[in-house]
Amino acid sequence: MDFLQNNLIYAVPLLGLVGILVMAVKSAWVNKQDAGDANMQELAGYIADGAMAFLRAEWKILSIFAVLAASLLAYSGTVTEVNGKAIHSSWIISIAFIIGAVFSATAGYIGMKAATKANVRTTQAARTSLKQALKVSFTGGTVMGLGVAGLAVLGLGGLFIVFLKYFNVISANSHEMKTAIEVLTGFSLGAESIALFARVGGGIYTKAADVGADLVGKVEAGIPEDDVRNPATIADNVGDNVGDVAGMGADLFGSYVATILATMVLGQEITVTDNFGGMSPILLPMVICGLGILFSIIGTWFVTIKDEKSNVQNALNLGNWSSIIITGIASFFLVKWMLPQTLNLRGYEFSSINVFYAIVVGLVVGTIMSIVTEYYTAMGKGPVNSIIQQSSTGHATNIIAGLSVGMKSTVIPILVLAGGIMASYYFAGLYGVAIAAAGMMATTAMQLAIDAFGPIADNAGGIAEMSQLPPEVRERTDNLDAVGNTTAATGKGFAIASAALTSLALFAAFVGIAGISAIDIYKAPVLAGLFVGGMIPFVFSALCIQAVGKAAMDMVQEVRRQFREIPGIMEYKAKPEYEKCVAISTQASIREMLMPGAIALITPVIVGFVFGPEVLGGLLAGVTVSGVLMGIFQSNAGGAWDNAKKSFEKGVEINGEMYYKKSEPHKASVTGDTVGDPFKDTSGPSMNILIKLMSIVSLVIAPYIAISASDATNNTGMEVKKEIRVQKTVDSLGNETIDTLVNETDTVIKN
Amino acid sequence: MDFLQNNLIYAVPLLGLVGILVMAVKSAWVNKQDAGDANMQELAGYIADGAMAFLRAEWKILSIFAVLAASLLAYSGTVTEVNGKAIHSSWIISIAFIIGAVFSATAGYIGMKAATKANVRTTQAARTSLKQALKVSFTGGTVMGLGVAGLAVLGLGGLFIVFLKYFNVISANSHEMKTAIEVLTGFSLGAESIALFARVGGGIYTKAADVGADLVGKVEAGIPEDDVRNPATIADNVGDNVGDVAGMGADLFGSYVATILATMVLGQEITVTDNFGGMSPILLPMVICGLGILFSIIGTWFVTIKDEKSNVQNALNLGNWSSIIITGIASFFLVKWMLPQTLNLRGYEFSSINVFYAIVVGLVVGTIMSIVTEYYTAMGKGPVNSIIQQSSTGHATNIIAGLSVGMKSTVIPILVLAGGIMASYYFAGLYGVAIAAAGMMATTAMQLAIDAFGPIADNAGGIAEMSQLPPEVRERTDNLDAVGNTTAATGKGFAIASAALTSLALFAAFVGIAGISAIDIYKAPVLAGLFVGGMIPFVFSALCIQAVGKAAMDMVQEVRRQFREIPGIMEYKAKPEYEKCVAISTQASIREMLMPGAIALITPVIVGFVFGPEVLGGLLAGVTVSGVLMGIFQSNAGGAWDNAKKSFEKGVEINGEMYYKKSEPHKASVTGDTVGDPFKDTSGPSMNILIKLMSIVSLVIAPYIAISASDATNNTGMEVKKEIRVQKTVDSLGNETIDTLVNETDTVIKN
Repeated sequence: MDFLQNNLIYAVPLLGLVGILVMAVKSAWVNKQDAGDANMQELAGYIADGAMAFLRAEWKILSIFAVLAASLLAYSGTVTEVNGKAIHSSWIISIAFIIGAVFSATAGYIGMKAATKANVRTTQAARTSLKQALKVSFTGGTVMGLGVAGLAVLGLGGLFIVFLKYFNVISANSHEMKTAIEVLTGFSLGAESIALFARVGGGIYTKAADVGADLVGKVEAGIPEDDVRNPATIADNVGDNVGDVAGMGADLFGSYVATILATMVLGQEITVTDNFGGMSPILLPMVICGLGILFSIIGTWFVTIKDEKSNVQNALNLGNWSSIIITGIASFFLVKWMLPQTLNLRGYEFSSINVFYAIVVGLVVGTIMSIVTEYYTAMGKGPVNSIIQQSSTGHATNIIAGLSVGMKSTVIPILVLAGGIMASYYFAGLYGVAIAAAGMMATTAMQLAIDAFGPIADNAGGIAEMSQLPPEVRERTDNLDAVGNTTAATGKGFAIASAALTSLALFAAFVGIAGISAIDIYKAPVLAGLFVGGMIPFVFSALCIQAVGKAAMDMVQEVRRQFREIPGIMEYKAKPEYEKCVAISTQASIREMLMPGAIALITPVIVGFVFGPEVLGGLLAGVTVSGVLMGIFQSNAGGAWDNAKKSFEKGVEINGEMYYKKSEPHKASVTGDTVGDPFKDTSGPSMNILIKLMSIVSLVIAPYIAISASDATNNTGMEVKKEIRVQKTVDSLGNETIDTLVNETDTVIKN
Repeated sequence: MDFLQNNLIYAVPLLGLVGILVMAVKSAWVNKQDAGDANMQELAGYIADGAMAFLRAEWKILSIFAVLAASLLAYSGTVTEVNGKAIHSSWIISIAFIIGAVFSATAGYIGMKAATKANVRTTQAARTSLKQALKVSFTGGTVMGLGVAGLAVLGLGGLFIVFLKYFNVISANSHEMKTAIEVLTGFSLGAESIALFARVGGGIYTKAADVGADLVGKVEAGIPEDDVRNPATIADNVGDNVGDVAGMGADLFGSYVATILATMVLGQEITVTDNFGGMSPILLPMVICGLGILFSIIGTWFVTIKDEKSNVQNALNLGNWSSIIITGIASFFLVKWMLPQTLNLRGYEFSSINVFYAIVVGLVVGTIMSIVTEYYTAMGKGPVNSIIQQSSTGHATNIIAGLSVGMKSTVIPILVLAGGIMASYYFAGLYGVAIAAAGMMATTAMQLAIDAFGPIADNAGGIAEMSQLPPEVRERTDNLDAVGNTTAATGKGFAIASAALTSLALFAAFVGIAGISAIDIYKAPVLAGLFVGGMIPFVFSALCIQAVGKAAMDMVQEVRRQFREIPGIMEYKAKPEYEKCVAISTQASIREMLMPGAIALITPVIVGFVFGPEVLGGLLAGVTVSGVLMGIFQSNAGGAWDNAKKSFEKGVEINGEMYYKKSEPHKASVTGDTVGDPFKDTSGPSMNILIKLMSIVSLVIAPYIAISASDATNNTGMEVKKEIRVQKTVDSLGNETIDTLVNETDTVIKN
């Protein structure tokens, strides 16, 4: 016990290593599985090559970006005094940035590699049994989940130890500790930057391919989805991997790292006497998330079914719930063991058990958000049915119904989020908000495993279709795919909830480092910042949607050209040039992701340096609120449209009549689905990263603008009114004692 | 001069009376015009009767609501001490509320009456010349504009004088003056409540009728728009009046009153020595707006054309610009004359000339917002063209393009608004923000005249079509109608800008009365309020859109029934039962407006009383930001879709080919237009009133929750940390003197 206490910090990267080791074992197991016949392997090879081609193209651009950004970071040349020596902290941040970027890219690579191996092996397994197909596809997802979580914990924990040594930190509340954590934000910035491009680029890729393949293949040529004759079909299947696997993985990698980091920043401000050298509030989020990897591994054991008739969804739920509940129970003991009786953050006092309650709040918020998202997008439920009914009067009413469902679906999630913020704050102040997010993210490995399983099953179905395997194979993969659609929806709910809480934690951390004590929207410039911030998700969404539209048009023209110029495609006599379509999607996504990315990265820098930290705080609040709303609205509207369309496959009843595919209402539902595609897979989920990234950028520049703001005041030469805030304590007898100086603010008087 | 100075306050209602007198003269002139032949008069009679039927039904519900709300207000039973006597201020607020509601309803009535008289007379005038048709239709609009502005200034100014006498106010900065202005908020609350129902109810009415008439008439039966055989055609024409005339009028009546009031509340806080008993900052907004009526009348003189070839838009622009420029010049002299050299509001010092600059900021913001709105929705410009191009690949891409245009169109307006907030605040603090709004609203009479002219011309065209008049008549009314579509768009830009600035002014006034000194979103509960506030415009929009969908379905079924059950309609042998369709639209709109209205009215009350004024402040900020964004997004997307569709009438070029009506791209554009209908005429413009009404409700309850919040703190029995804020002045030599106590805030320490 003593040993563990003193060396608890070493346990963190160790837990990450355990995750990576288990991942390696699972990955090897997947690779060992039968990859099917030559035809299947050839098709799977196209998909894997296409996915890697995208990654290579993306990496080429991103390494230029990373080098540029790192140079800028290093060039800013801040010097911090550490242990009496001047240290170029900006250089260290820039190195951490590069490491974060590389780790995030590696996590994406591992996930994509695993997914492109697992897809064809799932198809082959589906030739024998559903049980085996689930095992292969879910294990493929687990590789992704463990890879992301393991790398994150290893990287963050490892770098933290390095910085502790480098800065020679000997006390938890020292300036050196503060600096060690501040430079760690570089890691998070690197990870989240890559995540933005992966999510936006992947989102554009997958929907350009999907819309393009459907518009010419299904609508014009009349061949089924995933038909081997469609030149865009490989790009479409690649898209599932680059968008849903790599994009989602990078997103959650970023959330995971940012959440832990924000909690550490806030934890560092708490002065405690404990058995960990006063470091317990800093260590707690890392330990919880590290252990969460183990609990996720335990959860995966429950994801198994008996036979063909077993319910796959239930198996996944059981695994998910197990990890969440174990995490909850473990948190109780961790909190009791690590934290002292009472803690105090920025004047807010709370007991250690309240920290546990805050973690429970986080777990509950995540769960409810997932359930609500499922309700609004699931087949057979009210919202999707309302869209189906309104498809009977045409395209326009289908669209109106979907938009209305999406807008309405924001109500409960926002109330849950607001309640979660208030409850976790009530329990443990801002540390409570941050640790709630960390608790929620602890089972990220499990969440991602479930998430990545979906596109693997989807791909497996595609390969089955393209290889013209017997119908029972496709039936089994369809079964998995249907479950995958649901988990995709719940995963999005989880991702947005985690992004919202993470942003709030980052927001609180930002306020601390920027040296401001309030973000007062009653001040006109702050309110102006709030307005501008609220607008950014709108323009970001517009750019994403537009990009998909443009790229899909390019794809349509290429597919039309191939049908026209390559004779014999339709008769299976000639092979389409799959790689040309892959290249179009790749180039378009890389090209179009730059502008939205630039907005997210540059806006906070400009606002922060020109208008100061408080206006930047207003901007962040605006981005977060508007981004969460637009994220939920777009993701849920898209999901509901998708399932409204899918409902026609089995037939739906409208006003007592049955309608099937190719009916007029079905055509209207296809319109909704096409509109929903970029909503749910490009712009909607990008909102998560947008809000997180802007918060992290602000956190990174916080020390710089904190300085420049006070400089500005000093340089104006105008009369300055100083406002001193002191604290007075009134005891129960009414005696007043003046405590401490809280802060001084300057009011400049204009002449 | 002396006389004017001492009795300036009496000039305000007098200016209102002048407006009403001129209105009466113009109204009489319109009535004197030839109303055409018996057939035309019969059709116009149907429209007028339908419009009045709606008003009667609406008033029935609204009088129940008004009595209930007034009783609740009176029942709250606040007692204020005035001049040493206890006064039931809640009773007075409740009376002011009723008066405000009645004035607002009267303004709507006058406008609608004028519009339904002017429409058929415009048709008749169009038989002779375009010049005469413009004269009649614009004079009809002027009646509305002057009625709204005149009644507002008369009511507000008159009531203010009554309260000054009643409370025996002898000093501008007395408690009595504060109370007199506080009870005046009842007038604004009454006006804005009626406005909400008028805007939402009218918006649902007009779009239910429009969509219903089009879906069966144009699409199923294949008869043209405004065909006399369509049972819903009268309801459609009635809708133009109840939605675009009465709804817009009530909206701007509310903005106008709220803006003046908010500026008065802030002005009362400013202590000055002037020639008006220290009242100049209170009087200024009233005087500017009162004079604005005269300047609007002057502006109307310029709205005239020479002959058939003259540009109608230029004539309107000339009139509009004249009033704005005269108002700007007059403001300079007013400010110089009325205000002392320096003013100070809540510690922010500014000179009187800066107040003038703030007014100019308001005028510029209003103008730019109008221009930008026009750009995003006008035919032949980039945004509408992009929608046209993307109509070539079907319904879905048309929708995607429109949504993307709408989202992108938020960028410049928000930057302009944010810049306007910062600039006007820079010039004259919060008083600057409020007076900027007041300056913008000063020419409301002119804005409304231009706005109301559009639907009158639209109706005139409808009557021409229904009466089968010669084509040159329809040509002339079409010319006016096309200009009307542009002015409708710019009017919406102006309305949203005014609503945003008004809300900010109300927001500032709320903070003062609620007794809080900051709205700090860094506090978790305030941030939670911001989230919930941001969500409200989404759910409000969803409810409006849904309501239109439902009501349109009812309309479709009724029209189908009449075509089926009344033989001879198609051969002009039998008359359709117009009144049945009118009744459906009326009932649906009355029924469906209640829920959104309740959300707007009740949410601030609940949040304010349960969570206190600061969380309510967060809620208001959230509603305002999100409401402005959703308002711009929806209005502009809808306007752009509409004009994309209209562009097909003259033919459009897509990829080198010409497309006209009935082509596939045109069908796609009709889908966009139908989706856009509720966007641009129901949910979009409702956002204005939503944000204003919630701010006014908060302002009215502010004194109550300010009390209850401090009660709550005292009752908890927990240890309280007091935070005292004092001001310290540092002179140029570095000497510090501690000035004044700024405020005390309590931090409750949880156990």
